[in-house]
Amino acid sequence: MADSNFYKKNGSYKLGFLAEISDCSVMDQKDRNILIHDIATIEDAKDGDITFLQNPKYAKLLKKSKASACILSESNIDKAPEGMALLVSKNPYYSYAKVVEKFYHKENMFLSISEFTYVELSSSIGNRTSIGPGTYIGPNCIIGRDCVIDANVTIENSIIGDNVIIHSGARIGQDGFGYAFHNGKHQKVLQVGRVIIENDVEIGANTTIDRGSGPDTIIGEGSKIDNLVQIGHNCRIGKHCIIVAQVGISGSTEIGDHTVIAGQAGISGHLKIGSKVQVAAKAGVMRDIEDGDIVGGYPAVPIKEWHRHSIIMHKLVKERTEKK
Amino acid sequence: MADSNFYKKNGSYKLGFLAEISDCSVMDQKDRNILIHDIATIEDAKDGDITFLQNPKYAKLLKKSKASACILSESNIDKAPEGMALLVSKNPYYSYAKVVEKFYHKENMFLSISEFTYVELSSSIGNRTSIGPGTYIGPNCIIGRDCVIDANVTIENSIIGDNVIIHSGARIGQDGFGYAFHNGKHQKVLQVGRVIIENDVEIGANTTIDRGSGPDTIIGEGSKIDNLVQIGHNCRIGKHCIIVAQVGISGSTEIGDHTVIAGQAGISGHLKIGSKVQVAAKAGVMRDIEDGDIVGGYPAVPIKEWHRHSIIMHKLVKERTEKK
Amino acid sequence: MADSNFYKKNGSYKLGFLAEISDCSVMDQKDRNILIHDIATIEDAKDGDITFLQNPKYAKLLKKSKASACILSESNIDKAPEGMALLVSKNPYYSYAKVVEKFYHKENMFLSISEFTYVELSSSIGNRTSIGPGTYIGPNCIIGRDCVIDANVTIENSIIGDNVIIHSGARIGQDGFGYAFHNGKHQKVLQVGRVIIENDVEIGANTTIDRGSGPDTIIGEGSKIDNLVQIGHNCRIGKHCIIVAQVGISGSTEIGDHTVIAGQAGISGHLKIGSKVQVAAKAGVMRDIEDGDIVGGYPAVPIKEWHRHSIIMHKLVKERTEKK
Repeated sequence: MADSNFYKKNGSYKLGFLAEISDCSVMDQKDRNILIHDIATIEDAKDGDITFLQNPKYAKLLKKSKASACILSESNIDKAPEGMALLVSKNPYYSYAKVVEKFYHKENMFLSISEFTYVELSSSIGNRTSIGPGTYIGPNCIIGRDCVIDANVTIENSIIGDNVIIHSGARIGQDGFGYAFHNGKHQKVLQVGRVIIENDVEIGANTTIDRGSGPDTIIGEGSKIDNLVQIGHNCRIGKHCIIVAQVGISGSTEIGDHTVIAGQAGISGHLKIGSKVQVAAKAGVMRDIEDGDIVGGYPAVPIKEWHRHSIIMHKLVKERTEKK
Repeated sequence: MADSNFYKKNGSYKLGFLAEISDCSVMDQKDRNILIHDIATIEDAKDGDITFLQNPKYAKLLKKSKASACILSESNIDKAPEGMALLVSKNPYYSYAKVVEKFYHKENMFLSISEFTYVELSSSIGNRTSIGPGTYIGPNCIIGRDCVIDANVTIENSIIGDNVIIHSGARIGQDGFGYAFHNGKHQKVLQVGRVIIENDVEIGANTTIDRGSGPDTIIGEGSKIDNLVQIGHNCRIGKHCIIVAQVGISGSTEIGDHTVIAGQAGISGHLKIGSKVQVAAKAGVMRDIEDGDIVGGYPAVPIKEWHRHSIIMHKLVKERTEKK
Repeated sequence: MADSNFYKKNGSYKLGFLAEISDCSVMDQKDRNILIHDIATIEDAKDGDITFLQNPKYAKLLKKSKASACILSESNIDKAPEGMALLVSKNPYYSYAKVVEKFYHKENMFLSISEFTYVELSSSIGNRTSIGPGTYIGPNCIIGRDCVIDANVTIENSIIGDNVIIHSGARIGQDGFGYAFHNGKHQKVLQVGRVIIENDVEIGANTTIDRGSGPDTIIGEGSKIDNLVQIGHNCRIGKHCIIVAQVGISGSTEIGDHTVIAGQAGISGHLKIGSKVQVAAKAGVMRDIEDGDIVGGYPAVPIKEWHRHSIIMHKLVKERTEKK
């Protein structure tokens, strides 16, 4: 399926082999020898392709799919058409990820340091880290091993761990937004902290992470940050968080581990957001949130209350229109 | 009006000539020989300038304008002061655009490929396409003819049509945001699709368009995308859409033709948004939308219902304050 | 506290001296000779450090702080633990800013013009202005004195004053988003205005400011703009405004002086927003706003009414759940 100009394909592979590398069991053992040539979506798949079903929205399309095999959960076995070979997984999306990696592998994008990349002499870059064209690494930065830093990135006043991916146009370590109002003017407050990015973090294109004002701004191990996200000075993001595109987190807010913040949500400054919290898309969070809570709305409230708001508004429109 | 350091002016032109090139009729034939020297806004215009009236907000200013001529619709003729020459147009803003192009023309910004621009050898660039400084074009990309790609742009894993404009800092074709959660960590799912940008598309500054995960991300012919917009992997945007600044569209959402999405609106993933849909500024769309529907609010509802929400809330505040 | 790899520390200083340079009075004169070695936050401070208290949220932490001295307002004197030396200030954050500047000073980041920076010959750059790597300055731009322009910035069709700071990835002066719809297509309207940035302005990372369509886009003296902000063509921002991250201001809107727009707020086009206005985070402003007004909500209403909305919705959820 993938364009061979961009991605080199490996394989084909027997279904039994793909099951082994992806934590799946083959539903019908006689299917183990079926030869799979490529991956594809449910809709685009043709004979010889393997696909996967995770999002229930697509279940109804599976019956018409031409895929030779499908990775799915036990509860979805009945959604498959007759004759399709099935790999049963506890986590079909994860199993699919392992299969994709078998068919296509990621090549190192850049030589160690590309053309028009400028790394200040006082910075250090770890082994096997590659840096794209037009990227600037400021003085005294430390970048770990096995990182991929794409084109046109700026990194200043930062210490970055191993195996970190930074997409193009990300801005890391510039001044935080701090001013003291005095005599009718906004006086800049010197920002003397750093950005610390722990191992296995991914940072999206054109995302901005300001350095601390004195304390550091910290992105915890394994957290994944999407495009166009703003993270203010002194924020501490925990480990293995997901922060979706266009989220904004104001200065000095702390976020626990395994918290998910959906797209365009905003979080005020100086808050404590717990671990395993879920913030709905576009929510506006103005208070601390306890571990495990799920919130939505503007201002954000517990998600069930927010859903009730929508239902109540709908009913009020009806009631008040009828009264007229 | 325009600063001659930045824009070279042509002309002057007779009003009759300007009417012909801009699909207007001269209201009073004796005005055809009036000489027009420049364009200007209603407020800034002076003797010899031509202006235009489109937004009704500015109608009341027209009576005091010093412009020698004005492009307007038939219904606004009475808004003009006595003695002002009038060009009557079915689409005054379009007519104005044609007149501006006569007085000022766009020069090619860059030589074919500028300083510090890095184009991988395996990529191909069409005739008369110019690329600004600091831009990076990754391996195997195909860029069409007559494109303008501004400074500090990154393009990877993409195929781009003819006559496409990409403003500075746009990021096109980086990894989509796809992870499978497994053993407490987010495992990256290899993204093996492309970005396809059709002819006559314009993409704003610092906008990010992720490549597909397997299917492609597609921007349809003639669609115009503003600054700081996020378009997730596998999205398909139709033809001649308008997507205003800071909009976010989550992965795998499809949008029809001639749809307009106003600023800061957000659209969830895996949705189908029809053609000729209008989404109000800041709306949060969480459901499929039919062709021609107009929605607003968070979560988004039909625009009339959303306006009713605001009115009802205003009344409730009044009622409940009085009760006290 | 600050990492000496990134920031060179000066000092130590006597408390009496620090009071003098920061508009403070020493509460207990016998403390004037205490030697202060560094700055720190309330929580991180240790013996020999000076800290400050501005945000009341942190007042309760002060009693346990190990700082030798604290800058605070008169009303907070009782929040300090016994034995801590106190500097009393009318504006503790401002006083702290002056103290930080004494301990750490900002070095000039770049040589006048860095590697891989491309300045068109027809542009002029003022004395002591430094420009980071990968930045592009287009033809005929004028940049004032004592500016700091960070890496990977794009500036086109712009005139920029003195003492302006532009952070990495900012895009200034590209085409505004203007199209006339004609025969089923969006026709580009040539943009022939400029961006004018007055003295002492700061512009955040990856922020985008479009040039005017004919009139100019203007950012008034002393205004501070955070990261990822969008400012449309023809906007006029007054003096000493604060515009927080991810705000969007649509075309042709005018904003007075000393107005504060909090994060992710959006303002429609062609509006007049007064001076000393405050717009709450995430608000959606769709109408003109008078001087001094404070608004919030979507659509934005007076802030007190918006707070009432939230309270009313909370009550309605309760009432209607009980009725069941």
